[in-house]
Amino acid sequence: MPRWKPDAVERLQTAALELFGEQGFERTTVAEIAQRAELTQRTFFNHFADKREVLFGMSSELQQEVVREVAAGAGSSPPLDTVLRALEVVADKMFESRRAVVARRHAVIAANPELQERELGKNAALTDAIAAALQEQGCEPATAFLAAGAAMLAQQAAFQQWTRLDETRTLRELLPDAVRALRTTVEG
Amino acid sequence: MPRWKPDAVERLQTAALELFGEQGFERTTVAEIAQRAELTQRTFFNHFADKREVLFGMSSELQQEVVREVAAGAGSSPPLDTVLRALEVVADKMFESRRAVVARRHAVIAANPELQERELGKNAALTDAIAAALQEQGCEPATAFLAAGAAMLAQQAAFQQWTRLDETRTLRELLPDAVRALRTTVEG
Repeated sequence: MPRWKPDAVERLQTAALELFGEQGFERTTVAEIAQRAELTQRTFFNHFADKREVLFGMSSELQQEVVREVAAGAGSSPPLDTVLRALEVVADKMFESRRAVVARRHAVIAANPELQERELGKNAALTDAIAAALQEQGCEPATAFLAAGAAMLAQQAAFQQWTRLDETRTLRELLPDAVRALRTTVEG
Repeated sequence: MPRWKPDAVERLQTAALELFGEQGFERTTVAEIAQRAELTQRTFFNHFADKREVLFGMSSELQQEVVREVAAGAGSSPPLDTVLRALEVVADKMFESRRAVVARRHAVIAANPELQERELGKNAALTDAIAAALQEQGCEPATAFLAAGAAMLAQQAAFQQWTRLDETRTLRELLPDAVRALRTTVEG
């Protein structure tokens, strides 16, 4: 058996999410995760600072991708559309191929109030970063705040639908529906 | 000096917020808060479980008030309007007379990532509770989620404006402006 495992990150993530789901996040140790993945703890720590990092390690990459897309698209269309197009691109790139992992991660976080707060913090940071990116393109602060918040709200609605077992549409496909529903709700 | 102090809660809150602002939340002890308020630690613990409770003790009362107002108003108007009217009533009742305290609390939380996450958790719980109250009145889950989220987004925009030093309008007065701005942003 070769010692070099190209899919180590994925195996560790899968093992961790399985164990978090089975026995809870708090009760799961790095030793157990490594054992389940048939890797060493050393390999785990080569890729993750701790077990929390398995859940939130992607957040900064996600934020960078979204901000880059917003910056690339800003100025040419209304701010909300700019953000939505960025979220669509990133949905395809970072979510669609990992549907099972993303859904499992979501379930683990939903089961633990502390992790939920951390996730809310990451989402708030992403919203702030989107608003900042819009402002850099000349959008007014108040409008940037509302466009970023509204886009994230639509994204969350689409995401909730996407993580349902019986849902077959992609997240990108679900986003426009969520935006239409948001428009209807806000127009009253 | 009488031992019974009718304004003990307010004095403890003011003292705590002053100290949190001066030296940070983490570095402030209950002993210091009690001393600043010229009260005993025993009195502090009669009113608050810990120093965090000074910041978040109002959250459950706030949630109860908002949910009651939503339940009272639901069904007669579009869901978003129902929530906005509830937030207006509660803004007058729980925020307006305590502007300085609320603004100071906001600044303390903004300076501490852990407190920020806690605040985000409280806001998310409030949003969920509003959505649940709308659903109990027959609103569809997806619409309830979006109406609650959109109302909270407008509330946050109004709140940001309200906590500015140069702002003299009430939070209730600022809410409709925020909603109009949200409508414009979402309509594109």
